[in-house]
Amino acid sequence: MPRYALKVEYHGAPFAGWQRQKDQPSVQQTLEEAIRMLDADAPGIAAAGRTDAGVHAYGQIAHCDMAKNWDSFRLSEALNYHLKPHPVAIVQAAPVSDEWHARFSAVERRYLFRLVSRRAPVTHDSGLVWQIGHDLNAETMQLGANRLIGRHDFTTFRSSICQAQSPVKTLDELRVEEVAYPDGREYRFHVRARSFLHNQVRSFVGTLERVGAGKWTPDDVQSALESRDRAACGPVCPPQGLYLAGVGYPDEPFTLEDNGLSRPS
Amino acid sequence: MPRYALKVEYHGAPFAGWQRQKDQPSVQQTLEEAIRMLDADAPGIAAAGRTDAGVHAYGQIAHCDMAKNWDSFRLSEALNYHLKPHPVAIVQAAPVSDEWHARFSAVERRYLFRLVSRRAPVTHDSGLVWQIGHDLNAETMQLGANRLIGRHDFTTFRSSICQAQSPVKTLDELRVEEVAYPDGREYRFHVRARSFLHNQVRSFVGTLERVGAGKWTPDDVQSALESRDRAACGPVCPPQGLYLAGVGYPDEPFTLEDNGLSRPS
Repeated sequence: MPRYALKVEYHGAPFAGWQRQKDQPSVQQTLEEAIRMLDADAPGIAAAGRTDAGVHAYGQIAHCDMAKNWDSFRLSEALNYHLKPHPVAIVQAAPVSDEWHARFSAVERRYLFRLVSRRAPVTHDSGLVWQIGHDLNAETMQLGANRLIGRHDFTTFRSSICQAQSPVKTLDELRVEEVAYPDGREYRFHVRARSFLHNQVRSFVGTLERVGAGKWTPDDVQSALESRDRAACGPVCPPQGLYLAGVGYPDEPFTLEDNGLSRPS
Repeated sequence: MPRYALKVEYHGAPFAGWQRQKDQPSVQQTLEEAIRMLDADAPGIAAAGRTDAGVHAYGQIAHCDMAKNWDSFRLSEALNYHLKPHPVAIVQAAPVSDEWHARFSAVERRYLFRLVSRRAPVTHDSGLVWQIGHDLNAETMQLGANRLIGRHDFTTFRSSICQAQSPVKTLDELRVEEVAYPDGREYRFHVRARSFLHNQVRSFVGTLERVGAGKWTPDDVQSALESRDRAACGPVCPPQGLYLAGVGYPDEPFTLEDNGLSRPS
């Protein structure tokens, strides 16, 4: 069966997460149902990141096996037709080899976390950011973040239900960017690693928010890390600011110009 | 009665526009109801821009007259409490003189229009941008826009129900910015004038989109302007990409640091 890699964007609010559940809507089920409108017997799909309830994506990668060959652009258009009206879209599709696997071939995951600090409730970005009512210091948050970069035992920043075999991971990037936001400030956390523990990004951001608010020091972050104790973590922040931004593979299945836009003549 | 200027942000989707209507929800009515939770007899309010159905704002300015004096921050917090769960928020409030009028004192209006070009449906920005499925040329759109800047008779770009006394207006800025968008491109139109005709910005953007798509030339824009004929306008684009971004006054009522965020210690 020909295999296709799918780059998937979704709004996390209506879903209990990526993974198929018995009684609740999931992104996986929604996408599998669209695939089975094209191929009634198509097998289940796999994805690079099993995002939690409420978490968004604009760079989730999945793969599917189809009964017949598809032109990549036509496959994404057909799936988007059947995905309507769900807030799930195939932004790119590409043929891959039978050995290529969205989850097991991945060598890098990238996440974005959007944190808005403003007193007045956000109206346009409701459900798309974590909002707090006090100001933050981006510089001290970056100093705290720097203590987490590298290879560490991240037991402190791992949820108790995490199924990973080892808490030792290598964090390649944790960059804090401060950007303009109408009548407030936005802090974007850019996070990159080969793989993550469950709730790791939300544990990082919740802890660094305490640093930005002046309640923790960068040294406190290092102590929490070194304690290898879940109880030493700062508050885990809510899911609606988190986006799976991209996945890296040794053989990148997508080309930059693969998005089906016709160029003006 | 003490008068307060209010900087208002709203999501336009649930409203028939700013202006109070007999049978449909409006931003004005929603805000007046919140004000009357504080002051049962408060008079009706005025605003700088009467935005259409579906149009958003992050810089609408209104004013209200209250029975008693309010601390600005407490007034915005109290109104935001009563505005819930509507997607309307007071992002700043400030005392102004009795002569100050949100509409008649205004000397500049600024609008933003967000146009996303991508094949796959947008999921996070649904209802917040105008989406098209083909690519655009930002440079030719700017060349077309340049023909519109200055003092002109804008009859071509004015809706047939426009109530302005004269179609002659001075357009101070119409700048096209191309920014990154996941698996597509975003074009932001920054538009600034003392005042606008009805549907003027949407008529501009709809016409310039034709230029960006290669269907019109910048010369065609100039011919359309010079014809002073509504039928010569390009298609008027939909409202959901339009934002009232700001209003200018000779005596600016708000200070930059007025947004109520406490600074970290």
